[in-house]
Amino acid sequence: MQFRVRYCECDPMGVAHHSVYPIWFEMGRTELLRTTGRDYRTFEAEGIFLAVVSLMVKYKRPARYDDVLTLVTTLDDMGHVKIEHSYELRRGDDLLATAETTLACLDREGRASALPESLRSTSVGGLV
Amino acid sequence: MQFRVRYCECDPMGVAHHSVYPIWFEMGRTELLRTTGRDYRTFEAEGIFLAVVSLMVKYKRPARYDDVLTLVTTLDDMGHVKIEHSYELRRGDDLLATAETTLACLDREGRASALPESLRSTSVGGLV
Amino acid sequence: MQFRVRYCECDPMGVAHHSVYPIWFEMGRTELLRTTGRDYRTFEAEGIFLAVVSLMVKYKRPARYDDVLTLVTTLDDMGHVKIEHSYELRRGDDLLATAETTLACLDREGRASALPESLRSTSVGGLV
Amino acid sequence: MQFRVRYCECDPMGVAHHSVYPIWFEMGRTELLRTTGRDYRTFEAEGIFLAVVSLMVKYKRPARYDDVLTLVTTLDDMGHVKIEHSYELRRGDDLLATAETTLACLDREGRASALPESLRSTSVGGLV
Repeated sequence: MQFRVRYCECDPMGVAHHSVYPIWFEMGRTELLRTTGRDYRTFEAEGIFLAVVSLMVKYKRPARYDDVLTLVTTLDDMGHVKIEHSYELRRGDDLLATAETTLACLDREGRASALPESLRSTSVGGLV
Repeated sequence: MQFRVRYCECDPMGVAHHSVYPIWFEMGRTELLRTTGRDYRTFEAEGIFLAVVSLMVKYKRPARYDDVLTLVTTLDDMGHVKIEHSYELRRGDDLLATAETTLACLDREGRASALPESLRSTSVGGLV
Repeated sequence: MQFRVRYCECDPMGVAHHSVYPIWFEMGRTELLRTTGRDYRTFEAEGIFLAVVSLMVKYKRPARYDDVLTLVTTLDDMGHVKIEHSYELRRGDDLLATAETTLACLDREGRASALPESLRSTSVGGLV
Repeated sequence: MQFRVRYCECDPMGVAHHSVYPIWFEMGRTELLRTTGRDYRTFEAEGIFLAVVSLMVKYKRPARYDDVLTLVTTLDDMGHVKIEHSYELRRGDDLLATAETTLACLDREGRASALPESLRSTSVGGLV
């Protein structure tokens, strides 16, 4: 996935604020899911919610306004209730950040819930 | 209402990004409503939604990181379905911005809906 | 310009929050400028800043998560110091919002400053 | 530090989006620094920048719109170039999230730089 850094995503240091990276990672997960023929909007309509329960980011180099960045999102593991992804954010050959998230599947009332069978059959892999 | 400008609300010019002001105005409306003994969270739980249908902002001077700002929110008019507010954003004696919004009352399906009687009895006025 | 509504741009009503629209309009201006062979990042590096001094938005229909939206940005007028744009935000044939902004050209110290000659020669027009 | 969850910080699940928590943690660091008689704005004016190089968050329970939350920010360790903080976010007695960050001191050009002596003398400790 490729995208441009927005002006309002940058802070007075002139670089993308660290709180924006989790938003980009979420976009990466959305597009990774779409490549498997499903979309997260439909999941929510069916009462299936995926909530981030753990986030870990290593910031290595800053991203600047108007940079075109490449995000590689990888599905690392899928359990009964939880999903693990990892991320590499690059600008050309430069590695800007790496990250890992764990999502948990919840029902409408926010209780842990088994991942839908259709999702569990997804093969582990990545998306550029 | 008084609040501090957050670091991430500022852009590479070192000033608060213009898209943050509508968020502050929304906070002003929330607190103005609270002074009348009600709160917007309860409205939504009852299926009453207030959506912004019109926004007009005049930016006069920039707000900077860590500035303590004062927002004066005034209820200007309340019709059958719509509510009009105006705003003055100040830093000490300096006027930073003025704004006006119109809200419309919607039901759960997003259809225009009469404002609840309890809200219509609110007297027009302001909140510092 | 086309883009998808991000999950975090949506509020508990399930629709894009009204404070996100000015961010999209800024992206429209950025891309409109790029079509003329220049970019805003270079302007800032040269000490030319364009600040929003006036914003007016009419919200007609809500935008939802994962919607693909089309933004038409039009350069309406260019004065000595100020630039006026207008915007139409659509989802397919549906008009979701219209807006107008006025930008002022500032120098590094935030003082009003004449627009650079290279920009003033831009012909008025729009970008889908 | 106490604050209210803003409407626009919440997503279609009706809970605070996970990307907002790092913004709150930054506010916690800002206020912790202020209690020692200094402020981050002055640091930046002097050419001292503190950039987040590592972020780890565990989300345990959701925060909802208009909740009043309490954030406890603790300075855990201060090295030559890096600072480590930890965070506990609570709503009343409920623990909503825990987190850890590492900051690095940078100069205006973004190079690693020794922490200023005035900061290094800060005693390790927390702020409610």
